Amino acid sequence: MTGARGEEAAIIDVRGWLAEIAGHTFMQATRVPLDELTGWREDPETGDIRHRSGRFFTVEGLDVRHPAGPVTSWTQPIINQPEAGILGILLKRVDGVPYLLMQAKNEPGNVGGPQLSPTVQATRSNYTRVHEGRRVPYLGFFREPRGRVLVDVRQSEQGAWFYRKRNRNMVVEVAAHVPAAEGFRWMPLRHVHELLAVPDLVNMDARTVLACLPPQGGARDGDEGFGALVARSRVPGRRAAHGMGEILSWLSGLRSTTDIQARPLALGRLRGWRRAGGRIAHDTGRFFEVIGVRVRAHGREVGGWDQPMIAPVGTGVVAFLVMRIGGVLHALAHARADPGYTDVVELAPTVQCTPGNYDHLPPRARPPLLTEVLAARPDSVRFDTVLSEEGGRFYRARNRYLVVETDEDPLPGHPDFRWLALHQLDELLRHSYYLNVEARTLVACLHGLTRDERLTAAAR
Amino acid sequence: MTGARGEEAAIIDVRGWLAEIAGHTFMQATRVPLDELTGWREDPETGDIRHRSGRFFTVEGLDVRHPAGPVTSWTQPIINQPEAGILGILLKRVDGVPYLLMQAKNEPGNVGGPQLSPTVQATRSNYTRVHEGRRVPYLGFFREPRGRVLVDVRQSEQGAWFYRKRNRNMVVEVAAHVPAAEGFRWMPLRHVHELLAVPDLVNMDARTVLACLPPQGGARDGDEGFGALVARSRVPGRRAAHGMGEILSWLSGLRSTTDIQARPLALGRLRGWRRAGGRIAHDTGRFFEVIGVRVRAHGREVGGWDQPMIAPVGTGVVAFLVMRIGGVLHALAHARADPGYTDVVELAPTVQCTPGNYDHLPPRARPPLLTEVLAARPDSVRFDTVLSEEGGRFYRARNRYLVVETDEDPLPGHPDFRWLALHQLDELLRHSYYLNVEARTLVACLHGLTRDERLTAAAR
Repeated sequence: MTGARGEEAAIIDVRGWLAEIAGHTFMQATRVPLDELTGWREDPETGDIRHRSGRFFTVEGLDVRHPAGPVTSWTQPIINQPEAGILGILLKRVDGVPYLLMQAKNEPGNVGGPQLSPTVQATRSNYTRVHEGRRVPYLGFFREPRGRVLVDVRQSEQGAWFYRKRNRNMVVEVAAHVPAAEGFRWMPLRHVHELLAVPDLVNMDARTVLACLPPQGGARDGDEGFGALVARSRVPGRRAAHGMGEILSWLSGLRSTTDIQARPLALGRLRGWRRAGGRIAHDTGRFFEVIGVRVRAHGREVGGWDQPMIAPVGTGVVAFLVMRIGGVLHALAHARADPGYTDVVELAPTVQCTPGNYDHLPPRARPPLLTEVLAARPDSVRFDTVLSEEGGRFYRARNRYLVVETDEDPLPGHPDFRWLALHQLDELLRHSYYLNVEARTLVACLHGLTRDERLTAAAR
Repeated sequence: MTGARGEEAAIIDVRGWLAEIAGHTFMQATRVPLDELTGWREDPETGDIRHRSGRFFTVEGLDVRHPAGPVTSWTQPIINQPEAGILGILLKRVDGVPYLLMQAKNEPGNVGGPQLSPTVQATRSNYTRVHEGRRVPYLGFFREPRGRVLVDVRQSEQGAWFYRKRNRNMVVEVAAHVPAAEGFRWMPLRHVHELLAVPDLVNMDARTVLACLPPQGGARDGDEGFGALVARSRVPGRRAAHGMGEILSWLSGLRSTTDIQARPLALGRLRGWRRAGGRIAHDTGRFFEVIGVRVRAHGREVGGWDQPMIAPVGTGVVAFLVMRIGGVLHALAHARADPGYTDVVELAPTVQCTPGNYDHLPPRARPPLLTEVLAARPDSVRFDTVLSEEGGRFYRARNRYLVVETDEDPLPGHPDFRWLALHQLDELLRHSYYLNVEARTLVACLHGLTRDERLTAAAR
């Protein structure tokens, strides 16, 4: 069993490895005006920004009507990337202990250089070689799965920034020895779990795949502490505040009655957004900007490229309230309607917002429980780390992720919130589009607490 | 126990009731040119046909690219009806025996007058009273469910004719006595099951809801015959040719790699379709027509209305091959990509086509197993009945539904087909968009064979 000191050493080791990778690779992202992006052009009719190949993704406009929402209608830019990519992790058991093949991967939007990434993180354009880069290593294990498939499910990504984006999340277990190529490392699952508590270290794509992984260790009933509670609460068939039929019916009802309409709109016809200074920004300076980025890189697929990116304004707050109900840990899920979702509503964390975006709105429009989460007593905070969102599309997008334990329901009977047991979240994660990507990050972080909580404090 | 003679009497009774309803209600549907439809107008820019209220549905165009399909690209008219309606059945137990509250409902596209329909069958426009008709009886039981919710799941409808149409399928069990209004009847579930074998009697909306209903009777291991086999094969945890993880992974892979793109297109810009004589038809006369229909009715929501409808050319063939594997009945599901599906691919019956649509195509484009199903030995045919599709949008649309038992796999290892155990179909039906509407009809018909097979022969 690794002690707190051993874990610190392990973090230093991974940091050293990432720094080493950063040292003999190189990536520089410079902001450039949108109209100077090589290979990208503005559609003369619509103003949409697309690659000359017609592939990768497009920046388009969206016209949203949400009559019952705090803001009843708006327009916004959105990324349309209709192809589903693969986010895949190889898993191998050594003496029964699961190891993951992780990659040190840099992305132009990353804050601190390379982050811990899945074995494979490939868009379809990427692996069908539209940009004529290098082959994607290990892709063959996922395209025609070789080994035992532990996870294989399509999940959505940011519904506020992506229009119906989905990726295939996979974990494949291999029996034979698969050597780690340069830039890759076999690491114990437990170690990856621990690293989730280090700011900006495990990337979003790794987190969403980890969230979908069923329990790999056993829960021992004698164990104590919050981590043991998490493990016990993932055992299928344990108690739950609401039966699965009731949860599914609640979602079915909301998906049938929530009136949110999102229609494509020419990027040049947005209201309240201005294209000036080579970027697209909201008149109030809030929400996000669409910017141009020029990338120079060595040691990655190609030597350099240009691309548009979304640069959010401000750091978000994303939090699950959790509570013990009948000895089983439950998370308070919020049924959230974002315009980019495939099926109207997905289950989101209790709180998910960028506080600055609400400054100009009346108090009733402020997200419920934001204040409570930010003022939580330190001894009720089970997780609290700033993590980065996907650095291939988002420029320095970061959220502060929190898990806060409570012993009373702050919103009893609220129609948009329900307590779900952790084993129910596992069951829903076998299927597409139930948990949004922010909830999946928090689920991964919760799972990461299973074995040992001490790292959180040690790493900060 | 009801014998064959008793069942025949029951059919005569239901037929009598439907005739009686037909007698003191009245519905006449007359074909009229599209440009004479009152309340509907052609968009001057696109040619799309929409209601002046902006509600109900729109007839639009669709541009489909399917490079790996037998036809690699085409355009077609399609119905866009973005609102989710409710298809709901009330269930009540009397001395442990489940009864359903069924409605005798006529629709303009029906072949033989009123059909057996769910308790509630309401579009959202319908129940929010856009057309100022009468209140929808029993709607309150489903909008804010009162009672025990046995089924509540959104499911797709015809992906060839509807663009991302979905309805909420519900069964709510009530404890108290709920009287049957005029035009409604409490009927034993078993009886409704038996009536599935009568041509054009149980409507599509009732069938899809019935398919989603979990087993209500017990399977007795001692029982013999095909019906008992069906019941035993629905018990969760029984054997299956492929584990659920394997099935979900197969679907995830197909949904990620199937390259089918469907983009909205102005109805006036279709290629190969002609608007003439007040209707829209394909140049070859195949597939379907968009026609105008004038409805005169008494005893329904309003006295009369006009609407466009889809009138298919020819009767379809829809069949499941079923096989016993390890004593458990499996159905051979086909992963089908229709342009209107929400998530690329859904599980369809083994065969689903209108044979005449393939006359002009090369033999390799003919659907696999069509010939085999049509030439099946009579003693292997477990179900064979012509049933109607939804009469509110489709004009006299009928399919011949078959269940054919085989004892060998005719397509071993085919990448687009998999054997699923009946209990796996039940599990998938708890979630949205796994089984298409044609597969759901066949699942309902299979479930209907549970108690007694004798009716099929007696009723024809």
